[in-house]
This record gives sequence, structure tokens and C-alpha cells, in this order.
Amino acid sequence: MTDFPKANAVIGQSGGPTGVINASLVGVIEEAKKHPQIEKIYGAVHAVAGMVNDDFIDLSNLSQDILETVAVSPSSSLGSSRDKPDAEYCAKILEVFKKRNIRYFFYIGGNDSANTAYILNNVADEMNFDIRSFHIPKTVDNDLLVTDHCPGFGTAAKFVSCALIGDDLDNRALAGVKIDVIMGRHAGFLTAATALGKIREDDGPHLIYMPERGVSMDKFAADVQDVYSKLGRCVIAVSEGICDENGETWAKKLAEQAEVDAHGNIQLSGTGALADFLAGQIKEKLEIKRVRADTFGYLQRSFAGLQSPVDVNEARWCGRHAVQYAMEHDNGSVAMKRVGNGKDYKVELFRTELKNVAEKTKSMPDEFINPEGNGVTQAFLDYAKPLAGELPKTEYLGNYPRI
Amino acid sequence: MTDFPKANAVIGQSGGPTGVINASLVGVIEEAKKHPQIEKIYGAVHAVAGMVNDDFIDLSNLSQDILETVAVSPSSSLGSSRDKPDAEYCAKILEVFKKRNIRYFFYIGGNDSANTAYILNNVADEMNFDIRSFHIPKTVDNDLLVTDHCPGFGTAAKFVSCALIGDDLDNRALAGVKIDVIMGRHAGFLTAATALGKIREDDGPHLIYMPERGVSMDKFAADVQDVYSKLGRCVIAVSEGICDENGETWAKKLAEQAEVDAHGNIQLSGTGALADFLAGQIKEKLEIKRVRADTFGYLQRSFAGLQSPVDVNEARWCGRHAVQYAMEHDNGSVAMKRVGNGKDYKVELFRTELKNVAEKTKSMPDEFINPEGNGVTQAFLDYAKPLAGELPKTEYLGNYPRI
Repeated sequence: MTDFPKANAVIGQSGGPTGVINASLVGVIEEAKKHPQIEKIYGAVHAVAGMVNDDFIDLSNLSQDILETVAVSPSSSLGSSRDKPDAEYCAKILEVFKKRNIRYFFYIGGNDSANTAYILNNVADEMNFDIRSFHIPKTVDNDLLVTDHCPGFGTAAKFVSCALIGDDLDNRALAGVKIDVIMGRHAGFLTAATALGKIREDDGPHLIYMPERGVSMDKFAADVQDVYSKLGRCVIAVSEGICDENGETWAKKLAEQAEVDAHGNIQLSGTGALADFLAGQIKEKLEIKRVRADTFGYLQRSFAGLQSPVDVNEARWCGRHAVQYAMEHDNGSVAMKRVGNGKDYKVELFRTELKNVAEKTKSMPDEFINPEGNGVTQAFLDYAKPLAGELPKTEYLGNYPRI
Repeated sequence: MTDFPKANAVIGQSGGPTGVINASLVGVIEEAKKHPQIEKIYGAVHAVAGMVNDDFIDLSNLSQDILETVAVSPSSSLGSSRDKPDAEYCAKILEVFKKRNIRYFFYIGGNDSANTAYILNNVADEMNFDIRSFHIPKTVDNDLLVTDHCPGFGTAAKFVSCALIGDDLDNRALAGVKIDVIMGRHAGFLTAATALGKIREDDGPHLIYMPERGVSMDKFAADVQDVYSKLGRCVIAVSEGICDENGETWAKKLAEQAEVDAHGNIQLSGTGALADFLAGQIKEKLEIKRVRADTFGYLQRSFAGLQSPVDVNEARWCGRHAVQYAMEHDNGSVAMKRVGNGKDYKVELFRTELKNVAEKTKSMPDEFINPEGNGVTQAFLDYAKPLAGELPKTEYLGNYPRI
């Protein structure tokens, strides 16, 4: 496909921010600059919204200093969007592309973003306007198909691990029940990652609930009682997508309840309602005085200065590879294949078709969840540990032998 | 006072954990080992509760490796307690001290802990059992008297700064109103510290509400509307102790409201209720669609692996000095005096009487709060910046010039 015309490129960042989505952005920029087929590099401000409104900045001449600072900055440096373009929206984008001679499209995001790249490419074909449409994976949920894991997950996993290491020590110091609500509506990977920092046998989180397994409120309370009876305390990680035994999310039930009560305004993220509800249930069902709940909220996707080194390198690498693939192929999504494990952890990148990644998501495989549905397996820990990187080591003296 | 008998020492950690309270513990241990007047070093498990129940571990022979790991571990490695001993409780503790020949008492905590040390010393005097009673300051609230600042504050300040740096970038990517509720019931230092990472003129937090200044809900909403009209977004840091114009806390009102509604179980910490309430108010009063709220909860005092280097050094130094003072004096609390500023930041330690620190707390001085009562001054930033240490630098491309 050497007859593809010289043209300009555009980069967009879509959906929820992550800690390394900017590393992918820098990866695309630095690679694009190496290829004379790519002329100007546009940054679309607020993703597809910027593309349709002709709102661009020039990414071609940023200093290396600025690029390196962008690469370590959390969140989406170009701004993001929740728009989900249909064919009509894409046709408008393509009019802008024509005007600006943009033929290389790089979109960093989740499965919806892959779908946008897919639709855009199809609409461009129909318009006989040849473009190269590429998706670079990004999500803290780690729920994209094909790829072994997603850039963004490792850094979020590091955050929740460090949080639970500290929270468990806090709970040792002042004992009680502690509930932590973690992001992930449909996939439990991030909630599961709260277990990565456990080193002592009695370290928390002692219970982990992922959306892949339903749990009744009675079973939930019985599990907590069980741990509390043994340890005198209990730390619990709960996905915001926690379901009951029929697969209905507790958050949804709660929102309905809130509607009935005319208390309104309860949403899944950016609120502590689910955590408070679960804490209330434990207080009500068990006679435990000290019950606390925290919702990690946006901290877990945007905390500054806490990237996982592996994650940030892979994110940048994925960005660079998207450009390389675009020199040879019409479309694609960058994916990772694990070729080593444990200390020999290593990945190779490859291209997959956009349609393989668009729209669909994956859940935690069965082998990652314990039979009781309230914890993770060694297989999960082996999978996730290299992604979060090294975690802080801690010491707790309170269970040393007495004198 | 060279006639003070050779004896054993005990160390306890009290109240809410911090990120560097264990550094103070290690400081006490390493210094105590240098003084032959001190024989065994006991660690009281769960503070005064361990002392009264004769529940101790031996801190005399821990390896340097273990000590260094303790020093970087968040939370209270010996366990903590919320007990507030009176004279009777102290008399029981002293019976245990007599039995074990403990005459050096080191207590790491806030103003209540200083008070415990004070009462214990007085009761010991009455019993003619001579002890050396010392308090080492610790609190994320930074609200102790005499000392320039408290160990624990700098690390918590670093956490909330990194959180707000990221949260502001998140809010740029997906614009709306974001409310972050920060610890500190009576003192606004930690909430104020959310401003430390601001570098760009339009960086958030754009509004900061501290317990020292009341704000009516109407003024709060008007402030938010004002920022939102200018920037199209607004990030707000609110102390959990936020008050109305009459000085009544919103959290208290909310708890009363909840009681009336029979929804119960609302407390000040470890719940997202205040944040959700404030978000609901903004939604109701202003026509802004995207309003989110996070409560930072226990993360801000116990997150693993994020100590401020200055803070951790000072915490350890305070521990060491407590032992040195105990060689010469009957009682005291370790305090810091600032002898340099800005880049030349430097402190000297000194001893103050326990009664000067016991019970009372301090608030943010007027010069640290802006006239509108919704932000901080340069004087506060100059005061707090050296304590949190270096913060991550970031770049946001979305406000670069358009092409």
C-alpha cells in the first residue's frame, strides 16, 4: 500500500482518563514524526467533538521536554469526550478531515473508541476517502478483547494495591469492618487487583467481590461475619458493579430505591452511595460497631505521580506501534501478547482488526476467581503482578510475639 | 537529674494513623538503644489499651532491616487506640509499669495523646513513682499548639496535592463540577493543602472551603456558578468540617436530617454522605448536568508508598529528640520551630511542657485564608510547600493555541 498519499494525522483521546493515556499520545507523536508520509500531526481537543468542530492544536513541534511531561501526566491531555459517533457524525468528521487533508486517524480509548474508529473507516470507504484508522487500547477496567491486558490497568492496579496495603494497616491499627468500593461496572479486574499487595497471611482485603459473581446480601454479611469472627476485623474490596444472586447490580437497586424515596441524583460513579449502603447493611445485619466505607472514585484513574513503570512503557509502545501499523495497513487496533511470565514477563505487540475489539468487552475468566466467588486465585496474581510493578513493602509489629 | 534510675521504656502510638507515625516510632527505638539508662524497649500493642492490659512486644532487638521497613510503612505499626485515659485508667497503667519497671513513657499522637502523657505524669507524681513522660506530635490535621507543624501533615498534604493535580486534569478532560471532601473536622490545613500542586492559572481546586470560615449553601452555590461560568468547569475542595454561616457543620445537619428520615448510620468519616449531599445541592440549585463528588476517606492518611521526604525525616527526628529530652527532663512534647523558609526551609526542635500541647488545638491563622473565605493565600502556600515536598509536574495540551 505504498501508493497511500502523504497526508496529515490526527490523534484523539476518548472515554474515561487513565494514568498512562498520555504516554500513548506521546508514543503516537514521536513515531509519527519519524515518517515522512505523515505531514502535520493534529491533536483533536476533546476527541471526536474536536474533530467535528474543527478544534485542533498542532502536536508536530512540541519540545521533547513538554512531551516527556505530557507522558507522565495523568488524564487525557487533549481532553476527552463521551460522544459515541454514528455514521452521520463520522461523515461530518470526514468533511473536516478532507478540508485539512487528514488521512491518518489515531484514537486512544476503550471498546467504544475502537468502534468509532471502525465506523469512521467504513464511512470513509463509502465516501471513497481513503483513511488509515487505528485504535490504541486504554482502560483501567482491562476489559478489551484480543489484547492480554490494557494500558491504564497496571497503573490503576498499582493505585488500588497501594491503597489497600495502607488501608489494611489502618484497619489493623483501629480494627473494624472496612469496605472499599472500586471502579469496574462489568469487569472485576481492578477490584481483583486490590489483592496484589498482600504479603502476610492475614493481610486484607479479606473478601473481594467482582461483578462476574453475584452475591446475596445475606451471603455477603455471612462472609464478613466469618472473617470478623476469626480476625476481629475485615477489609473488603467491592466492585461498583457488585450484583445480587440474580445478577442485578446493587447500585441499580439502590438508585431505584433512591428514586422511590425522592432522594434522587444517585449515580454509579462519583458518589459514595453504594459504599454507604453496604456499610449500613453490615451494621444492620451484624452487631459490629465500627464499620467504615470509602469509594475510591476518580483517584484510582487520575492520581498524579503514581504510574506503573511497565504500564507507562507499554502505553507508549502501543502508541508507537499504531503509527508503524498505519504505514502498512488500512485499520487496526494494537494488542499485546504475553510471551513471558513472572520475573520473565515480556510482551509482544500485534495488530488486530478493529471489528475484533469494537463494542464488545471481556470479563474476568473463571480461573481468576475463587470457587466461593469472594476472592482471587494465584492465577490472577501471576497475571496481574507484573503489570502493577513493584509495590511498597510494609511491616506490622502488632502481631509479633508478646513478652 | 542524673539520679534517675535505670529502667525500661515503653512506646505507644495513639489516635488516627498517619503516613509517618512509624518513622517516629523508629526514631524513638534507635535513640533509646543508644542510652544505657534505658534497658528494655517495650512496644505497647494498641497504645494505652496494651499498657493497661500488659500487652507488649519487645522492640529492643529488631533488625535494622525491619526497622527501616517499619519506618516507611503507613499506619500505626503497634496498633492504635481511641481510649482517652482518665486518672483511674492511668493508675492502672502505672501498676503495670511498676511491675515491669517501665519509667520512660513515649507516646506518639495528637493533642489527646499529649493529654494522656500529662495525666499519666501527674498520677505518677501522686503515686511517688517517678517517670519520664514524653509526647511526640502526630496528626494529618496539623492542629497541635506550639509546634510550627506536625509530622504526618506533610505526607497527607502530598497525597491530597497529588490527588487534586490528577483530579483537576480529569475534570479538564471531562468537564463538570467536582467536589472533593477532605479530612479535618476543625482545622482546614489539609483541605488547604489541596492547592499546593496548582501551577497554571486555571488549575483547580478553584474553591476551597475550610472549617474556619462558614459558608451558606447559597453562597457556596453562587461561588460554584461563578467559576463554572468562567471556566466551564469547577473543582472544589471541601473540609469534612465545612460549616454554614452560623458555624454549624453541614455534616451534623445532615446526620440530624438522616435521623429524622430513619436512614441512620451517617458519620463524619468513612462515608460519602456529605460529598453526595453537596453534589445534590449543586445539582438542585444550578443547572449543571455533570456533578461528581469523591470523599478521600482513609486513603489520605494511610496510602502506602507516598511519604513526603521532609515529613518522614522530621517524624523520625522528633522521635529521637523525645528520647534525648527524656534523659534530662521530667516531661515534654517535641515541637518544631521554622528557622528558614522557601528553598532554605529548615527547622529546629525544642521541648515544650506537656500542658502546653494537651487537649487544645489550633486552627488556620487568618493570614492563610483569603478574604472571601473560599481559598488560600500565598502565605499558606509558602508555609506548606516545603512540608509536602516536590510534587509531580504535569502538562495539559487542551488549552494550547488552536490551528
